[in-house]
Amino acid sequence: MTIKEVAAAAEVSVGTVSNVLNRPNAVSDETRLKVLDAIDRLGFVRNAGASLLRGGRARTIGLITLDIRNPFFTELARSVEHTAREAGYLLVLCNSDENRTQEKRYLELLEEQRVNGVLISPVNERDNTLQWLRDRGTAVVLLGHDRRSFCSVRVDDVSGGELAADHLLDLGHRRLAFVTAPLTIAAYNSRLTGVRRALARRGLPDDACEVVEVGSLGTAAEGRVASDILVDDHPEVTAAVCGNDLLALGLIAGLLRHGIRVPGDISVVGYDDIELAEHSSLPLTTIRQPKQELGRVATNLLIEEGQRGAAHAHQQIVFQPEFVLRDTTAAGRRSAPRRRTEGR
Amino acid sequence: MTIKEVAAAAEVSVGTVSNVLNRPNAVSDETRLKVLDAIDRLGFVRNAGASLLRGGRARTIGLITLDIRNPFFTELARSVEHTAREAGYLLVLCNSDENRTQEKRYLELLEEQRVNGVLISPVNERDNTLQWLRDRGTAVVLLGHDRRSFCSVRVDDVSGGELAADHLLDLGHRRLAFVTAPLTIAAYNSRLTGVRRALARRGLPDDACEVVEVGSLGTAAEGRVASDILVDDHPEVTAAVCGNDLLALGLIAGLLRHGIRVPGDISVVGYDDIELAEHSSLPLTTIRQPKQELGRVATNLLIEEGQRGAAHAHQQIVFQPEFVLRDTTAAGRRSAPRRRTEGR
Repeated sequence: MTIKEVAAAAEVSVGTVSNVLNRPNAVSDETRLKVLDAIDRLGFVRNAGASLLRGGRARTIGLITLDIRNPFFTELARSVEHTAREAGYLLVLCNSDENRTQEKRYLELLEEQRVNGVLISPVNERDNTLQWLRDRGTAVVLLGHDRRSFCSVRVDDVSGGELAADHLLDLGHRRLAFVTAPLTIAAYNSRLTGVRRALARRGLPDDACEVVEVGSLGTAAEGRVASDILVDDHPEVTAAVCGNDLLALGLIAGLLRHGIRVPGDISVVGYDDIELAEHSSLPLTTIRQPKQELGRVATNLLIEEGQRGAAHAHQQIVFQPEFVLRDTTAAGRRSAPRRRTEGR
Repeated sequence: MTIKEVAAAAEVSVGTVSNVLNRPNAVSDETRLKVLDAIDRLGFVRNAGASLLRGGRARTIGLITLDIRNPFFTELARSVEHTAREAGYLLVLCNSDENRTQEKRYLELLEEQRVNGVLISPVNERDNTLQWLRDRGTAVVLLGHDRRSFCSVRVDDVSGGELAADHLLDLGHRRLAFVTAPLTIAAYNSRLTGVRRALARRGLPDDACEVVEVGSLGTAAEGRVASDILVDDHPEVTAAVCGNDLLALGLIAGLLRHGIRVPGDISVVGYDDIELAEHSSLPLTTIRQPKQELGRVATNLLIEEGQRGAAHAHQQIVFQPEFVLRDTTAAGRRSAPRRRTEGR
């Protein structure tokens, strides 16, 4: 159904229909009702294409996450969707799967669809495509990563890692492990930096913390794999900081299977504070990221940049993480290595 | 940057640029390279608006879920995104929050953006908006719900409920509970129907299963609430079927806090088979839904409907759920009611 057909049905000119849609006050009540009635009868729906060709942008926002299945990104996406909807924007969800080519391809597709702006947790932080997008008038807000002349919203992950390690060191642990997805991902790398800072402040060397790097998704299954590595290769470790809560929950499940008690033998700290951290059988001590707040602030920043253009001042917003004490950490530690005993 | 500017920069006609973009074989290699070079220099990006105004549709797919934070929908969305991307489509993610007005508004917004098709887990199954969308040429595939003259993809939830209850009845349990999000949501309702069928086949009445309906999200926190209700009001119950895995994990955590052992005192069966069902400290007996497969098949069906239009034959696809035995069910049962003992 086109604007022409609406005009014919209402027996007015195309210009009048356009006025009704765009400048309703320029039209008499009688004419407006006649046109609106024709629109109702015909099921006319405004076509976003016209606005795009006039150089406008779609009322859509692109969100590029590393993987939506990671609960951190799920909660973030939910918050972005909610905030965008309230402002009248649709959310286009993209996963880069931590793949640079896929990330770049998505940026190009989003530009082809003339999205209003892009929220991105970047894999390739130095990619020129982001600058190219901005030059073309697309708003860009970085998630989890600062870059001069861009808006960004992130959590202070160095502090987060430090909080986790400080807690364990305060309990008397001296041989730690950091269980993590690949350190090529900036957030995990920063958390490790924080752990090492806490060690350094106490005069402990970097190798007082074993780095156990597992597959790229940071899932509970990979936490299970990490439990095998700790049991087989690192009998001296008495406490683990995990890069995220899923890794922590999987690690704990794996340790229990090996007959190692948590926190009796090994203490475990997670990262994120996902819903199941609080409500699992063994509530998880963790570092809370303000996921909802982060999504809300980032989305509002993106919309503002899209609306104000050059008048907009870029902001780098950093949230502080919060330590949450629950039941998976204690002063106790395993005295001797145990191997593959069935513990249930 | 417009097609005219590309033509000027390449010193060819607008028609030639259009040919390079749309019918590359109609143009000599030399001309094509000249135009592509100009495009590169100018940073020309195809504008999807033109195609929309010619009556075309955006290469986007809308997905309306009840709530993306439910891991079933998260995994489904991941699979839809993956399948759509491979076919060159973007995914617009929408949450209805189980709200009919919000669902309808999303359908209208998606149509305004001329999405190619809509995958929807409907709140309002009889809404005329879906038929209206279809009449306008938008493909529609229903998730989790059949409707004549629409394509649909769902899991047989009645069978799923039956599988769960059969397992518990086979173990000797005779007083069950069904812990669920509101039964106004079709999937949960069907699962209860399945539980009652299993009871009926053994000559047991409906009230051999207490229905414990909690808040609308079906989260672990609500599973915790259900544990309080079971402890306070239903001391006779020895086994619970939960509407989803999050409810089950939260229920188990809550029961343990009350000093009730799982499965020693109460057996628990989940539904979905999310990643943490397998990898939590107490691996969960559950009913597996083929989430990835469901997302893939639904997306392909939607794309096919969009491409073939009237030539497309509607299909109602039903997947069978699968019973997964893990560690939260046993023949044992609590002998006497226990109240609020601290069990940790």
